[in-house]
Amino acid sequence: MSSTDDLASRSPSRRPQFVPGAPANTLHVKSDAPTPELHVIAYHGDDFIEKRLDRPADVVELLDQWPITWLTVAGLDDAATISELGRIFGLHALALEDVVQVHQRAKVEQYGEQLFIVARMAELNATLETEQLSLFVGKNFVLAFLEDPGDCFEPVRARLRAGGPLRQAPTGQLAYSLLDAVIDAYFPVVEAYAERLDRLEDRVIARPNRRAVSEIHAAKHDLRSVRRIVWPLREAVNSLVRDPSPLIDDDTRVHLRDCYDHLVQIIDLVETYRELCSDLTDLYLSSLSNRMNEVMKVLTIIATIFMPLGFITGLYGMNFNTERSPWNMPELNWRYGYPFALGLMALTLLGMLWYFRHKGWLGDGKA
Amino acid sequence: MSSTDDLASRSPSRRPQFVPGAPANTLHVKSDAPTPELHVIAYHGDDFIEKRLDRPADVVELLDQWPITWLTVAGLDDAATISELGRIFGLHALALEDVVQVHQRAKVEQYGEQLFIVARMAELNATLETEQLSLFVGKNFVLAFLEDPGDCFEPVRARLRAGGPLRQAPTGQLAYSLLDAVIDAYFPVVEAYAERLDRLEDRVIARPNRRAVSEIHAAKHDLRSVRRIVWPLREAVNSLVRDPSPLIDDDTRVHLRDCYDHLVQIIDLVETYRELCSDLTDLYLSSLSNRMNEVMKVLTIIATIFMPLGFITGLYGMNFNTERSPWNMPELNWRYGYPFALGLMALTLLGMLWYFRHKGWLGDGKA
Amino acid sequence: MSSTDDLASRSPSRRPQFVPGAPANTLHVKSDAPTPELHVIAYHGDDFIEKRLDRPADVVELLDQWPITWLTVAGLDDAATISELGRIFGLHALALEDVVQVHQRAKVEQYGEQLFIVARMAELNATLETEQLSLFVGKNFVLAFLEDPGDCFEPVRARLRAGGPLRQAPTGQLAYSLLDAVIDAYFPVVEAYAERLDRLEDRVIARPNRRAVSEIHAAKHDLRSVRRIVWPLREAVNSLVRDPSPLIDDDTRVHLRDCYDHLVQIIDLVETYRELCSDLTDLYLSSLSNRMNEVMKVLTIIATIFMPLGFITGLYGMNFNTERSPWNMPELNWRYGYPFALGLMALTLLGMLWYFRHKGWLGDGKA
Amino acid sequence: MSSTDDLASRSPSRRPQFVPGAPANTLHVKSDAPTPELHVIAYHGDDFIEKRLDRPADVVELLDQWPITWLTVAGLDDAATISELGRIFGLHALALEDVVQVHQRAKVEQYGEQLFIVARMAELNATLETEQLSLFVGKNFVLAFLEDPGDCFEPVRARLRAGGPLRQAPTGQLAYSLLDAVIDAYFPVVEAYAERLDRLEDRVIARPNRRAVSEIHAAKHDLRSVRRIVWPLREAVNSLVRDPSPLIDDDTRVHLRDCYDHLVQIIDLVETYRELCSDLTDLYLSSLSNRMNEVMKVLTIIATIFMPLGFITGLYGMNFNTERSPWNMPELNWRYGYPFALGLMALTLLGMLWYFRHKGWLGDGKA
Amino acid sequence: MSSTDDLASRSPSRRPQFVPGAPANTLHVKSDAPTPELHVIAYHGDDFIEKRLDRPADVVELLDQWPITWLTVAGLDDAATISELGRIFGLHALALEDVVQVHQRAKVEQYGEQLFIVARMAELNATLETEQLSLFVGKNFVLAFLEDPGDCFEPVRARLRAGGPLRQAPTGQLAYSLLDAVIDAYFPVVEAYAERLDRLEDRVIARPNRRAVSEIHAAKHDLRSVRRIVWPLREAVNSLVRDPSPLIDDDTRVHLRDCYDHLVQIIDLVETYRELCSDLTDLYLSSLSNRMNEVMKVLTIIATIFMPLGFITGLYGMNFNTERSPWNMPELNWRYGYPFALGLMALTLLGMLWYFRHKGWLGDGKA
Repeated sequence: MSSTDDLASRSPSRRPQFVPGAPANTLHVKSDAPTPELHVIAYHGDDFIEKRLDRPADVVELLDQWPITWLTVAGLDDAATISELGRIFGLHALALEDVVQVHQRAKVEQYGEQLFIVARMAELNATLETEQLSLFVGKNFVLAFLEDPGDCFEPVRARLRAGGPLRQAPTGQLAYSLLDAVIDAYFPVVEAYAERLDRLEDRVIARPNRRAVSEIHAAKHDLRSVRRIVWPLREAVNSLVRDPSPLIDDDTRVHLRDCYDHLVQIIDLVETYRELCSDLTDLYLSSLSNRMNEVMKVLTIIATIFMPLGFITGLYGMNFNTERSPWNMPELNWRYGYPFALGLMALTLLGMLWYFRHKGWLGDGKA
Repeated sequence: MSSTDDLASRSPSRRPQFVPGAPANTLHVKSDAPTPELHVIAYHGDDFIEKRLDRPADVVELLDQWPITWLTVAGLDDAATISELGRIFGLHALALEDVVQVHQRAKVEQYGEQLFIVARMAELNATLETEQLSLFVGKNFVLAFLEDPGDCFEPVRARLRAGGPLRQAPTGQLAYSLLDAVIDAYFPVVEAYAERLDRLEDRVIARPNRRAVSEIHAAKHDLRSVRRIVWPLREAVNSLVRDPSPLIDDDTRVHLRDCYDHLVQIIDLVETYRELCSDLTDLYLSSLSNRMNEVMKVLTIIATIFMPLGFITGLYGMNFNTERSPWNMPELNWRYGYPFALGLMALTLLGMLWYFRHKGWLGDGKA
Repeated sequence: MSSTDDLASRSPSRRPQFVPGAPANTLHVKSDAPTPELHVIAYHGDDFIEKRLDRPADVVELLDQWPITWLTVAGLDDAATISELGRIFGLHALALEDVVQVHQRAKVEQYGEQLFIVARMAELNATLETEQLSLFVGKNFVLAFLEDPGDCFEPVRARLRAGGPLRQAPTGQLAYSLLDAVIDAYFPVVEAYAERLDRLEDRVIARPNRRAVSEIHAAKHDLRSVRRIVWPLREAVNSLVRDPSPLIDDDTRVHLRDCYDHLVQIIDLVETYRELCSDLTDLYLSSLSNRMNEVMKVLTIIATIFMPLGFITGLYGMNFNTERSPWNMPELNWRYGYPFALGLMALTLLGMLWYFRHKGWLGDGKA
Repeated sequence: MSSTDDLASRSPSRRPQFVPGAPANTLHVKSDAPTPELHVIAYHGDDFIEKRLDRPADVVELLDQWPITWLTVAGLDDAATISELGRIFGLHALALEDVVQVHQRAKVEQYGEQLFIVARMAELNATLETEQLSLFVGKNFVLAFLEDPGDCFEPVRARLRAGGPLRQAPTGQLAYSLLDAVIDAYFPVVEAYAERLDRLEDRVIARPNRRAVSEIHAAKHDLRSVRRIVWPLREAVNSLVRDPSPLIDDDTRVHLRDCYDHLVQIIDLVETYRELCSDLTDLYLSSLSNRMNEVMKVLTIIATIFMPLGFITGLYGMNFNTERSPWNMPELNWRYGYPFALGLMALTLLGMLWYFRHKGWLGDGKA
Repeated sequence: MSSTDDLASRSPSRRPQFVPGAPANTLHVKSDAPTPELHVIAYHGDDFIEKRLDRPADVVELLDQWPITWLTVAGLDDAATISELGRIFGLHALALEDVVQVHQRAKVEQYGEQLFIVARMAELNATLETEQLSLFVGKNFVLAFLEDPGDCFEPVRARLRAGGPLRQAPTGQLAYSLLDAVIDAYFPVVEAYAERLDRLEDRVIARPNRRAVSEIHAAKHDLRSVRRIVWPLREAVNSLVRDPSPLIDDDTRVHLRDCYDHLVQIIDLVETYRELCSDLTDLYLSSLSNRMNEVMKVLTIIATIFMPLGFITGLYGMNFNTERSPWNMPELNWRYGYPFALGLMALTLLGMLWYFRHKGWLGDGKA
């Protein structure tokens, strides 16, 4: 899987197809890449077969023998394999190009009798990682292209292995099951962000620091990625629900409506958490302003108290010659000169404290 | 009822159904949970019966005997009960799944001849608490699933007990009455926020402190939750008004239009209060900036007055040897040296005060 | 008239009808309230009659005798009167409920052959005050419910008294005239805010203070209220223009299009002034930042000049014993020690001034 | 021409027509105003006549003699003239009212066989000035009302004088030419703002001051006015392009599509410059924060260096009696006491400088 | 190519056509300009010819001889050439005017049997540079006008030279290939901004300085330009996909849908990076506030420690005459007076440090 940052800074090696002006129907993939993993499941009612294929050509006889064949191709670096599969399944050149251009927006397209569905799987490890799923649905096959081995389809495979209604259903239902697995995998991702933001909220209120801002920024960034992925997926699923296709029967349509509801819910959650991110940034800034105010008040109180006091000490630290005239600092020779000076300072101090109390600056640290 | 924060950080035990790839039509609920409360009202014109049921199966004979049966199920933790009710009332598997997935968006769906309505009840205790209401409406029954015992339907029950037009009306009208009760319960919630924000507004202007920000933040958060709940409810009610369903007669439709108006009004109010929250945050920040300015002015005035004065005292506190040369601090030996220094300080002070008055810094604390 | 704040914090006594679950068609008004004022105008071509009614029932004979009767009911606190009028005019229960629920959004509804129009009148006294107008238009009557005596219909009455085309026109035209009066009354309100904001703009630039922020906040609040009132009114008038109703003839439709234009213009102005409010807040904050910068510069200049000077005075105020060794503060005994120290200070001062000029801190207060 | 501020604070004398409840079809204009300037051009193929009219009635014979008459009325203060023109051309009362209500939004209305077009001309002198153009288009006339003498139609007149295709075209084409002249006059206005903002951008980056903020604020205000004027004009032109009118032939329609493109482009530019204004405000605030940071750093560096140094000088300025005990300030009598104190200060200074370098506070003023 | 800033401050020499009121169908271009470069490719299946033309008239015989002729005109300053080409290809006057008005929004217009397409090519050198492409598509020709020599069509030419399917396709397919080349050239531009913003993000977090703000501002500005260019292009391509034109066959339509997807993806990316710009500005401001807080804390700590200490040293630097009375500063004559004073200072220091630790101000610089 590739990090979402790849969505932004896609290296030329991953997306060499954007040679401006190049013919749109030429595949640009690295030719020295390893063979992708080919995993196939074929079934028909009670019969079921599951194996790894060595060569793409091996799928031909399965297609002939089985009513429904589901082939998963993990790894897109081998142009030969992909081209051969394109020939075998009769895939449109533009669609094949979208398969290897792994940063497509989700979409559904009808090529002749085939449905071509692009979606994006997400997984939250240390960072948010996403992977393009390209799905071709034909009358007797489902062909899934993945960027790397490892997917979220294991439960679907388990259900097929176990038998049950899915074995009887047409290919559209299988495609729905795969999409459903992809979509449901977004819930734990979004919830992880919810928990992260909850923790951040507490931290921002209790002790706003710079790392919190970076984390809010990162969460915002990821949520934006998720939204950018899920939004077109919603449109795509909606078009599957609305536009008639012979591959989607009415029952599947009802289930897809459920998928659509889930996507709306995910978008809803993502939008909520994005707004929460903005709120947290505001909260952070106002916490910061609050602390600044508090710091400034301490500074001002200290300065306002000690500057006048310091002035008085400085005053009586002057060296005017008291012996030369009675006008020169007679206080220094008063009997109670020192107590007088201390009293003056005490009065000043009390006056300042009264002023601060009047201003309301001497509340608790919360004010 | 569950707190709205549950909407965000839903624990796995509450929403175990998001096992990616699991078949959509399998119920995932805790099997060791207590039996839910089953409360049933059945009526027909003048006849009326109300009782608690011990077992779901008891409802069957009521359905046979009474033209309209209203069953309320409070508590969703017992899979057996819910599955059995599903069988008895012929509920669709996807709908049943939505019943136990208690964080659905509000929606209306048509399953065969049944209407399936999801809404969310709100109650404002210490925090905002919400609870999912799942409503199945059939020709001769209304089936309401609640998360916990306790609801806002008591007035509807009272009207049924008292007799009156509702006893004559079809099930659609009963369903409307329940929805209406749910919707009207949002008004006191929204008004409570209105009052809270009014109080906050006064506080923010009079004495901006950190707690006010937290409270604004919390209110914003809750209002966002309310909006997220009410918005799809509006769409759902609108679809009930527009899309023809045999269960909704014309009279009910007129009443639903009224419901719709109420929802629009609630959304309107919520949006207004959300904008008010943003305004309050701005107001808070500008209050804070104002106070900071005030604090800084005090600091600057104090420093600007006492630093020059302190300099003068420091000057005449230097120990240059006046006896060595007449150039060394002759002021110390002047007859009026001390008064001269004091006069210098007074002049400095007056100059500074004039400067501050000129700058307009010595206005009232409001400026 | 009620203040717009009532829109937010509506006391239970004003809106007792939101008893969740209560039947929608029950009137909840205070029963011990005074009788509302009933004012009636009936006319037909040259004939014209205008009088106050003591009892609602008195209108029945007018309805029988005159082709067009316009009854204005000012005061909604007496349930009996309103219920009786409902019976006399055959008003729908839901509509009647909206009449007494005085915080409805503007809307137009068709009940049978009657049009039911809800609008809101505004008046700007010390604060913005609004009042709900509920208008029933039938073939031979216009029935207007107001919250309190006092309205903006006097010019319409004057035109009816004077005779002229309005006397010949159907009830739809009279309803239009009332709506037009209501809508035109918004222009002076909006302009008053325009003038207020103009004055605020000058003040914010010249002397940003805390009161200005409160006033901007208040204006924003009121403009939001006006928008919230006028927006649905625009929709309502638009539906009158578009949707065919036998009560609205083509001529009236042309005039309503003019009303619609006025509403669009009012919304336009309100949006402009709301944006202006936001701009003023920004302007205020940047004025504040500017002043803060200015204050900080003064503080920094003072501190940066006097701290080094103070250091020098402190240095030569140390009491090291010059007699013990020639290393101990020989300057004190120099012939030109004091001038040397003063020169050192002058140099420091000049250096600092040069630095500030270099930094551009000694420009005019504007920079 | 009136300043755009008039849009906001329109004096009662300019808009006396908003007497709430007054009949919509009464003209309210000052009766003692000077006669407006009447300028007429009539043409037909090769024939062409251009003159000033003294009295409105003079246009009648031109209308009879010439296939196309273009009358421009500059000045709206004389009710008699306008009413008489209304009678001569058969103008609708509501349209005439819009002519004298000079703050209409742009619109196109069809009154019988006449088109009524309201637009607004802009000119950028010291401030942005706008003027309402009310255009009546009939089969054989174009009637243009302006607020004041002086317009942007001179090139159109020149083309008519010179002959050419416009002389052959129907009135719709002439109306288009006038609209086109009005619309194209917005380009220099918008560009003037572009240049002003470019200069402001440089100033905000180089030396953010308070006047820049006022100018950004003013530009924002004017651009908002332009948008508010142009936006409805776009709708109006669009309705001319789409809605069939016998006065607009296909060729004119193609040209109007071009007008529409220009309006879209103007709105595009205005939106861009408005966003730029917001960006500049942000830039200004961050420049200000930067400068504040810089100022604060200087203050902190100065204080942090001189406060410890001042403490040391203060320490050895204490007057403890060294003769009373060897514990009392023995340093004062050390042989190298003064060099020791100076060394202590130098060490402190170096420590502080190291600390600041470590903090990165001693970079260039840019950091 | 012209810089995007030209979009804003277009010099009169570049856009002299906006003479308000001038006839729309007159070409305003500089007459003394150099002849533009004319490059022509004509082909038909296996036949292929490519050459430079000296005079526009030379294209006539090519048009007669070859089924498809592609003429590229680079340079728009010579009115004669452009007018002559207009005559030869039968171009509409308004379209020709759009060709020389090089700041058109992208659009597609149908003039009789010709398609007129305006797009804008982008290239990122030191700054973002864009150039208008005006494309006329006829049955047997594609005519491309460029502002300057140099374009992104070389790969298309190479494919034509090499033969292949494009040689067989109709002119619509060639036009698509050119548009595709233009659109794909936006990807490297947008990615360059992505990388720039990535670097800026690191810098803003690590060391926020003024240059970063300028760069964010510049990136925002450019991205706004790109969006303003691409947005109407999307609409234009969409209208090509939807609206039937005999020049666009079904295969080309499928390819244009792909173009449309790319444009949606570009807009998506641009919007994401624009949001990122705003986030970075926020991040910058909060970094700045953080640093300010840090600076203020240092200042406050220093002042709060050294002001009380300085007060104590000042106190014992006063010159009250200890010999005159035992009340006058007896501490000076204490045996342990100096240690007592030092101890007092140490206590003060410890108290302050405890206070700061309690406030949490003595954490790492991160807090």
